[in-house]
Amino acid sequence: MQQQNSWLLPEGIEETLPTEAKHLEALRNKLLERFACWGYDLVIPPFIDFLDSLLIGSGHDLDLQTFKLTDQISGKMLGIRADMTPQVARIDAHNLKHTCPTRLCYAGTVLHTRGDPLEKTRSPMQIGAELYGHAGKESDFEVICLMLEMLAVTGLQNVHLDLGHVGIYRALAEQADLSVAQESELFAILQRKAKPELAELMDGYAINGDLKQLFLALPELNGDHTVLVKAQTLLAQAGDAVNQALADLTAIAGQLANRFPHLAISFDLAELRGYHYHTGMVFAAFVPKVGREIARGGRYDNIGKVFGRARPATGFSADLKLLSALSKQSFSCPPRELIFAPYHDDADLATAIRDLRAQQRAVIQQLPGQTGGAAEYGCTAVLVQEQQHWVVKPLNSATA
Amino acid sequence: MQQQNSWLLPEGIEETLPTEAKHLEALRNKLLERFACWGYDLVIPPFIDFLDSLLIGSGHDLDLQTFKLTDQISGKMLGIRADMTPQVARIDAHNLKHTCPTRLCYAGTVLHTRGDPLEKTRSPMQIGAELYGHAGKESDFEVICLMLEMLAVTGLQNVHLDLGHVGIYRALAEQADLSVAQESELFAILQRKAKPELAELMDGYAINGDLKQLFLALPELNGDHTVLVKAQTLLAQAGDAVNQALADLTAIAGQLANRFPHLAISFDLAELRGYHYHTGMVFAAFVPKVGREIARGGRYDNIGKVFGRARPATGFSADLKLLSALSKQSFSCPPRELIFAPYHDDADLATAIRDLRAQQRAVIQQLPGQTGGAAEYGCTAVLVQEQQHWVVKPLNSATA
Repeated sequence: MQQQNSWLLPEGIEETLPTEAKHLEALRNKLLERFACWGYDLVIPPFIDFLDSLLIGSGHDLDLQTFKLTDQISGKMLGIRADMTPQVARIDAHNLKHTCPTRLCYAGTVLHTRGDPLEKTRSPMQIGAELYGHAGKESDFEVICLMLEMLAVTGLQNVHLDLGHVGIYRALAEQADLSVAQESELFAILQRKAKPELAELMDGYAINGDLKQLFLALPELNGDHTVLVKAQTLLAQAGDAVNQALADLTAIAGQLANRFPHLAISFDLAELRGYHYHTGMVFAAFVPKVGREIARGGRYDNIGKVFGRARPATGFSADLKLLSALSKQSFSCPPRELIFAPYHDDADLATAIRDLRAQQRAVIQQLPGQTGGAAEYGCTAVLVQEQQHWVVKPLNSATA
Repeated sequence: MQQQNSWLLPEGIEETLPTEAKHLEALRNKLLERFACWGYDLVIPPFIDFLDSLLIGSGHDLDLQTFKLTDQISGKMLGIRADMTPQVARIDAHNLKHTCPTRLCYAGTVLHTRGDPLEKTRSPMQIGAELYGHAGKESDFEVICLMLEMLAVTGLQNVHLDLGHVGIYRALAEQADLSVAQESELFAILQRKAKPELAELMDGYAINGDLKQLFLALPELNGDHTVLVKAQTLLAQAGDAVNQALADLTAIAGQLANRFPHLAISFDLAELRGYHYHTGMVFAAFVPKVGREIARGGRYDNIGKVFGRARPATGFSADLKLLSALSKQSFSCPPRELIFAPYHDDADLATAIRDLRAQQRAVIQQLPGQTGGAAEYGCTAVLVQEQQHWVVKPLNSATA
């Protein structure tokens, strides 16, 4: 049976064939080039790492999604990266040690043991950018702008941006003096926006009436910009941290509306995407007909603390494979001329081929006795000998 | 203690920081571009795969080097690829199914549980090219030429090429009617060129006198082109397959000497690099002061059989990280202008920055209250306001 099925791939694990690979590669290079134009330097974190380093600051979810291995050399547990952000934070904290804000970007495969129910893949190609060393909303604004630029370069239209702020929930949870387990249980219910359960749970935790009303208000606070106005009233007594979070959200929304007049923006104050390491503003981008976010990010200050240096941090990431699939119509790599050369043991022919390739022109040389020729390879031109010279002719004229 | 050491990486696992990453990325793109000019299409095989698929046609060595995982979805054994060649062969055999010769290339990280004693890394970035569907020496010649072109693009000088042919040993082993275990034991001793042991072992196997002499001749057959002449005499009675192998080696060596007059070529008929899946010509490239081959390849016909289609195949691979490290002096990515822009909430400034980036010029924008500025980022120019216009000025003139 092995004979028949050995071409099968594990569920959610894909191989990328030439047409898709060419498109994906072109998009990858274009995006990394764009990131470089914004001053973001490429780093390449390792594919496997000590498990402890990979799960820094993250929660149970990432732990479950991480493939584990025993290192035969050290005997320690290794993990396959399920998220590159902690690795990039380590590079900032430990290796680079710049004092000024540091901009880094990356692109590489991550693996998930189970995958997300909304994602079909267990091997997304994570592409993203991170900005370390600046705590203000201006750096959040910069990375949101860069994320939108990434989607524009990808050719996506009708992008919808969702904004939230994990600091609001964190501040309320702190005021309620919840244990880690309680905070995590409350968080799960809030994510589901299950209001009756939420009320019941808070009674169980003996959260006082005022604070309970604030928690219960959160799932209501989603929609267009009027949400922020409503929140300022509902959460007026929620303390300085909450008020600051709302002020930052309002400011960023204003700047975004200014810079991107056609961008649809919504707010969701109970949306706690990536809550486990995020600490401030969180955001996600959507496009019509795709049932999950196509890019996401947020602030995650101090993740580098465990690596020896706590720095403010904000950034975003996306699945390059998903972007590539979505961009098939809109982002096109220019078709390339492909020249078919015959097989001859002729030094002039070899020179002609070498010269063409040196000019970045693509030449496929025939092999003796092969089946198929110029047409099978999709060649648009052929190399033919005319009066002792090898010249490139369009395929049709040459065969005519 | 975790706090102090959490930045440590597992032995032989590296992260690539901005300067190296930029160099590596430029070389990667240049090489893939070169492969495309030769008609080699990029494919992206998955990082993990069913173990059975990864170990197709390979031996015990690759098995030991492969990290193993349990798939939580299927319950089956998965492996992290330790070699991309079997995966690319599967793509040719199962997915593409072309009848004409198929040219594929790839670049990606592979992982080794232990690493090679000669290699410091356990996570090489394998880059390579494969040519399927042609059994003749002309396709071997093509991939050797492409491998040499890869090394030339990398900027390496004084490349030394070592040629061998696994078919010679295979033919002798077949004539001796050895069991798989015997063949593998004999192979190990031959690799070490341990002649007394070799003689002893063959006596143990009761290999007859003529054949024994042929086996004993193999370790002697290494050196310059005179080796081939010597081999033709010593192995004259070794049968058609051996004679054909020698004739092919002679022909390829002649063509290479013709095409690359300055290339140093040596021969080693007992060198059975990658023996486990190779079936014909094998080759490796060396440069001075590097104690191991920097690129290697060979013919491995019929590896795709288990995936449903046996096709002739030949190809090569190298570690892109090693090539990148070796090429630091010779291959340089052009230095890039980096412009520092101040922070102002000014629509004209935002437009000026957007326009510069749209022209592929790199701009880092200051963040309010940040430490460091243009000089810390290595910027060569700054964006300054002159008579209501934002203009780019060289760093020195602007600060003067």
